[in-house]
Amino acid sequence: MPDKITLYLTKRSVYAHRATLALAEAKVDYTRFEVDMVNKPEWYTSKVNPAGKVPALAHGGPQVSPDQPSPESFKLAESLIIVEFIADLYPKAKIMPTDPVQRAKVRFFIDAVTTKFAPAYVGLLLRGEPFDPVWAALDVLQALLPEDKPYAIGDEYTAADIALIPFLARLELVLGHDIGAYKPGEGRKAAQYLLSDKRFARIVKYLEMGKARESFRATYDAEYLKDAYGILFGAMRAKVQGAAA
Amino acid sequence: MPDKITLYLTKRSVYAHRATLALAEAKVDYTRFEVDMVNKPEWYTSKVNPAGKVPALAHGGPQVSPDQPSPESFKLAESLIIVEFIADLYPKAKIMPTDPVQRAKVRFFIDAVTTKFAPAYVGLLLRGEPFDPVWAALDVLQALLPEDKPYAIGDEYTAADIALIPFLARLELVLGHDIGAYKPGEGRKAAQYLLSDKRFARIVKYLEMGKARESFRATYDAEYLKDAYGILFGAMRAKVQGAAA
Repeated sequence: MPDKITLYLTKRSVYAHRATLALAEAKVDYTRFEVDMVNKPEWYTSKVNPAGKVPALAHGGPQVSPDQPSPESFKLAESLIIVEFIADLYPKAKIMPTDPVQRAKVRFFIDAVTTKFAPAYVGLLLRGEPFDPVWAALDVLQALLPEDKPYAIGDEYTAADIALIPFLARLELVLGHDIGAYKPGEGRKAAQYLLSDKRFARIVKYLEMGKARESFRATYDAEYLKDAYGILFGAMRAKVQGAAA
Repeated sequence: MPDKITLYLTKRSVYAHRATLALAEAKVDYTRFEVDMVNKPEWYTSKVNPAGKVPALAHGGPQVSPDQPSPESFKLAESLIIVEFIADLYPKAKIMPTDPVQRAKVRFFIDAVTTKFAPAYVGLLLRGEPFDPVWAALDVLQALLPEDKPYAIGDEYTAADIALIPFLARLELVLGHDIGAYKPGEGRKAAQYLLSDKRFARIVKYLEMGKARESFRATYDAEYLKDAYGILFGAMRAKVQGAAA
């Protein structure tokens, strides 16, 4: 029997979604524990993740309740490191390719997600910064996508897709519902631009492939996220647009 | 015969040093090409690294002169991705451990170098920002070091050490020679603090282990770096301190 995994997450978190996607791809049985980020339990930062963020993972050690983590289990934070850990634990899931060149391509794609797309996404949705950096980052990612293959680096679904698809799906969702710290009305216009302008045709097609994946459908709850982000980003909008008014 | 590697670098670059360290650990024969970053050749951005930065690596393809790169070789940028690529190509060098938990520890350590130490280092030396974020980042890294083992994650020298040691060695060097965008005189004081205060005893000992490594001694030229950083950071100091005056 393989060592037991407990995943600490919030259902809302785009970073936690990467971990649940990787676990779904690897078809792993694991224990989920939803962390209350508003009233964060003291044991979470003292015993699981000192940074206090989700996701975090506990691996191995004795059978314990998730809210009584054992010092004997291995604790790991940072979504992309968790994804590579799951890839290493379950090589048959092929979350990482075996060929060194293909592995490097996965990592290079992920680096672009981390350094270019994620900051622009956070800036737009949480701080009401301009749309242009998001569009520019989508251009960069799109240029890395292969022409006639479904996934980020080719025919196989990998950690590169796991890194990006949760962000893209949330972007489409929240823009479509005009949720974000930007000015009211701008989200729906942007959603129309994203989904219908030929500039983004390649990445929109890519997103559709990612959303069709069984692991995605099993780990994504659009209705829940619409409500959760409506509250979170609505508060950000009130703050940002209130300050701007 | 394994595929040929060409490394594009500057001898000065801390990022390129990571790549040369990894290649030295793997005992790989490769071709070095020093890129003139001041008068950067057009072919470098068009045919090797569109981002125009060093290091970059070309792997495979026909035998060509480095300044006439073949479209058939695989090009790779980003120092840490290059290090993991070399680790994947030459597993016997054990740059990455084989155990998933140990691999995750390497990646978590590298993440701290990237997100905490490197920005503080760049801020201090190139922009004359405060020393405190550098000291705080050293505290974080130090807390991750094992108590009684020589390297970042234990007895084996890994990509975690390759990620950090080039930075630490340069920090010690330039502070000791009072080179940096900070105010004249502050570097030598800081060097004394770093090297003699018990706050940093663990990481200073770690740095000594890293510098003693054969691969480090073969890839580090303190005299060259002192002169090169004297010019580069001297110009930054003139700009920053001139603007402050």
